[in-house]
Amino acid sequence: MDRADPLAHAHARFVLPENLIYLDGNSLGALPARAPAALERLIMREWGRDLVSSWNAHDWIGMPARIGARIAPLIGANDDEVIVADSTSVNLFKLAGAAIRHMAPRRVIVSERGNFPTDLYVLQGLERLLGGAAELRMVERENIRDAVNAETALVALTHIHYKTGAIHDMPALGDAAHEVGALILWDLSHSAGAVELFLNRDHADLAIGCGYKYLNGGPGAPAFLYVARRLQEALQQPLSGWMGHAAPFEFGDDYRPAGGILRQLCGTPPILSMAALAEGIATFDGIAMHDIREKSKALGDLFLALVERRCPGFEIACARNAEERGSQVSLRHPHGYAIMRALIDKGVVGDFRAPDVLRFGLAPLYTRYVDISDAVDRLCAVMSEGAWRDERYRIQATVT
Amino acid sequence: MDRADPLAHAHARFVLPENLIYLDGNSLGALPARAPAALERLIMREWGRDLVSSWNAHDWIGMPARIGARIAPLIGANDDEVIVADSTSVNLFKLAGAAIRHMAPRRVIVSERGNFPTDLYVLQGLERLLGGAAELRMVERENIRDAVNAETALVALTHIHYKTGAIHDMPALGDAAHEVGALILWDLSHSAGAVELFLNRDHADLAIGCGYKYLNGGPGAPAFLYVARRLQEALQQPLSGWMGHAAPFEFGDDYRPAGGILRQLCGTPPILSMAALAEGIATFDGIAMHDIREKSKALGDLFLALVERRCPGFEIACARNAEERGSQVSLRHPHGYAIMRALIDKGVVGDFRAPDVLRFGLAPLYTRYVDISDAVDRLCAVMSEGAWRDERYRIQATVT
Repeated sequence: MDRADPLAHAHARFVLPENLIYLDGNSLGALPARAPAALERLIMREWGRDLVSSWNAHDWIGMPARIGARIAPLIGANDDEVIVADSTSVNLFKLAGAAIRHMAPRRVIVSERGNFPTDLYVLQGLERLLGGAAELRMVERENIRDAVNAETALVALTHIHYKTGAIHDMPALGDAAHEVGALILWDLSHSAGAVELFLNRDHADLAIGCGYKYLNGGPGAPAFLYVARRLQEALQQPLSGWMGHAAPFEFGDDYRPAGGILRQLCGTPPILSMAALAEGIATFDGIAMHDIREKSKALGDLFLALVERRCPGFEIACARNAEERGSQVSLRHPHGYAIMRALIDKGVVGDFRAPDVLRFGLAPLYTRYVDISDAVDRLCAVMSEGAWRDERYRIQATVT
Repeated sequence: MDRADPLAHAHARFVLPENLIYLDGNSLGALPARAPAALERLIMREWGRDLVSSWNAHDWIGMPARIGARIAPLIGANDDEVIVADSTSVNLFKLAGAAIRHMAPRRVIVSERGNFPTDLYVLQGLERLLGGAAELRMVERENIRDAVNAETALVALTHIHYKTGAIHDMPALGDAAHEVGALILWDLSHSAGAVELFLNRDHADLAIGCGYKYLNGGPGAPAFLYVARRLQEALQQPLSGWMGHAAPFEFGDDYRPAGGILRQLCGTPPILSMAALAEGIATFDGIAMHDIREKSKALGDLFLALVERRCPGFEIACARNAEERGSQVSLRHPHGYAIMRALIDKGVVGDFRAPDVLRFGLAPLYTRYVDISDAVDRLCAVMSEGAWRDERYRIQATVT
C-alpha cells in the first residue's frame, strides 16, 4: 500500500523521531523539515539584523493575508476570504459577535451539545457579555435542524467532531440556516488539511480553524478565519484593534474598518509563530486535497479492520463508513486512559479524551500504511501483555 | 559615561548589527543573544522530537503564568497577578469588558484623546458591541481628572504617551478613580522594562502591556496583563476560552472560570513566540529597574543637550525634565519624515510618527552613551549635508 501511495514522497517533508509512530497530528502536527532553517533565517536576519525595518522589508505586515491566501485553496475559498489571526477561540468571538450585531433583533445562536468545549465557552462568554442581546441554545446533534428557525441569528457548529470524527453535512445545514434567513459558521479545526472542503460551493458564511493540527503550523500556531465575500463589508467584528483599521499608521482617534478580510485583524500578530505556520502550510504544496482524503479514508479503514481482526475488546467509537468519518479513528475502552499511556510508552502516540475514548489522528502527509499496521501490533501487545495494568498508568494527568 | 555605567555589561546580552545605532527598541526590541539557541532547542527537541507530550514534559501549558511571574517584579506586581496572553489589544478588550460588567449599572469609560490608537479602537469596539451598556468618553489630557466622576466605571489610560513620552501620574489618577468608586486600567506598552513601575503601591487595578518593545520579546510577541489580587475572583472576562477554564481537559459543556489570574487566558498560546518572549524577559535578569531608569534619564538628557548644542532647527517634542519623560526623546520638524529616512540610511534607526515627530527609543540594556553621541553626529550630518532633500525620501511609505 505504501509503494502505491501517491503521497509517499510527502513523508520526507517532515522531521519525525525514529521508531515513533505519531498518530496525534490532530493535536499537534509534526515538524516540517524546512521549518528550522526558515525560523533561523527569520530570527537572525529579519529580527536580529534588519530589526524593525522587517515589517516592510520582509513584509511581516502582509503575513496574515498572505498565509491566509495559501490556506484558502485547502478549504475551497477564494484567496481574499481567509486571513490568519489570533486563536481559534478569539476568532470565534469576533465572527459570532459580528454576526449577532448584523442579525439583530434576532438573538439566538444554535450550537451542539458536546461541541468542542472552547466553542461553547466562547459563545457563553458572548451571551453573558451581551445580556439579553444574545442567547445560546445548545441542542443534541440530532435536533440541530429542528432548532434552526426564524429566531435563529447564527448556527455555529464544528464540522468534524473532535472525539468521534463524525462529519456534519455542510451544504444541507447551510441550506437549513439560509432557508430561515440565518447565518452559518463552521469550526474547521479538525477538518482543514484533513478532508476536502468546499466552503464556497457549500454556502458557508463564516468559518474559523486551527493552525497547529493538520496544518502543521507548530504549537499554538495562530488560527485562521474565513468570511464569504458577500458578507465582508456588511459585518463588523467587535475586536476592532489597529491591525484591522483602514489606515493603521495614520494613528487617528477613530476606528474605521479596513476593507475586505483585513478588518478581521485585531492586534499585532506573533511573527515567529506566523512564520512556522507558513512552513506548515507549505507541506501541502502541490498536493491535492482529494488525494489526502482518499489516503485518510484508506488509513482509517485499515486501522479499524486490523483492530477488529487482531485486537478484540475495543468498541469502535467512530463511523465505520469512511465517508462519515474525519481523519481520525476512535476506540472506546473502560481502561482507555491506562491503555493509551502504555501504548505511548511502546512508541505509539495517540491521545485520550475523557471518559473512555482513545483517539488516533491520521495525517496522510506523513502517516504510512506500515505505521498503522505497526501501531495496531503494539496495541495488541499492550493488551495481551497486560502492560496497561501497571500502577503508573492508573492516575490521570491533568493534560494529555 | 560608558565606563562608569553599571549596566554596560548588559550590551553583550544582545545581538546587534555592527555600525547600526538602534534607537527603536520601543517599536521592536533587539534580539537577545540567547534567543536563537533557545528557539532551536524548542523547535528541534520539543516540537520535533517530543511533539505533543511537550505540553506536559516541557510545561508549555504553564508558560503563560510562568512568564507572567517573571514580568511581575519588573512592574511592581505580585507573581500571581500577571499572565502572558494574546495581544495588547485583545487583553484590553478582556479587562475593559470584565470591568464594565462588574461596574454595571455604571457604563462610562474615560480615556484620553490621542491615546495610542488601538486602545481607543478597542474601547470603541466594546462600546458598539454593548450598545447602551458602555459609553466611551475621550477627553483631552488636561481634562481627565475632571471627567472622572460618579458615572465612571473605568478610567483607561496609557501610562507613557507613545509620541511625546509624557508620563501620567499613576498614584494620583488611581486615587482620583477610587475616590469616585471607579476602576483604573493602565496600558504599560511604553513603560514595562523602561521605567520603574509600582502597580501595587500605586493602587493600579488592571493593566496590559506589550511584549515586543522594551521587553525584547520578538516581533509581535504575546502581550501581558495584570489584575490586582483583590479583583481576581470578582471579575469575569468575556473571552472565556478553554485555557481560562477551571478544568480545560475535562471537556465539559459549561464554562467555569479558573481561579486567580488563569481565568484571563482564552485560546491556545503561540508557543514559539512565547519562548522568544521568555528570552526577552531574561535580558533583565539580575538588573534593577532603578538602574535602568537612571540610565534612561541620562541617555535622554545627553541626547537633548547634544541636539540643542549641535543641531538647531528641531523643536523638542518631549519633556526636558527627565522625570516627566519615558524612555524616549521626540523631536519635531516639518520635514521629519524625510529626515528620519535619511538618518536611517546613515545607520541610525529611530522612527517617525505623523505628522512631524521623530522618535528615538532609549533601551538602557543595549543603548550606550557613545551611541547617543554618534547618533546626534549623524543627525547633524543629515541636516548640514541636506541629505534629507533627496527625491527618494519625499514619499511616505505606508508603514514606518
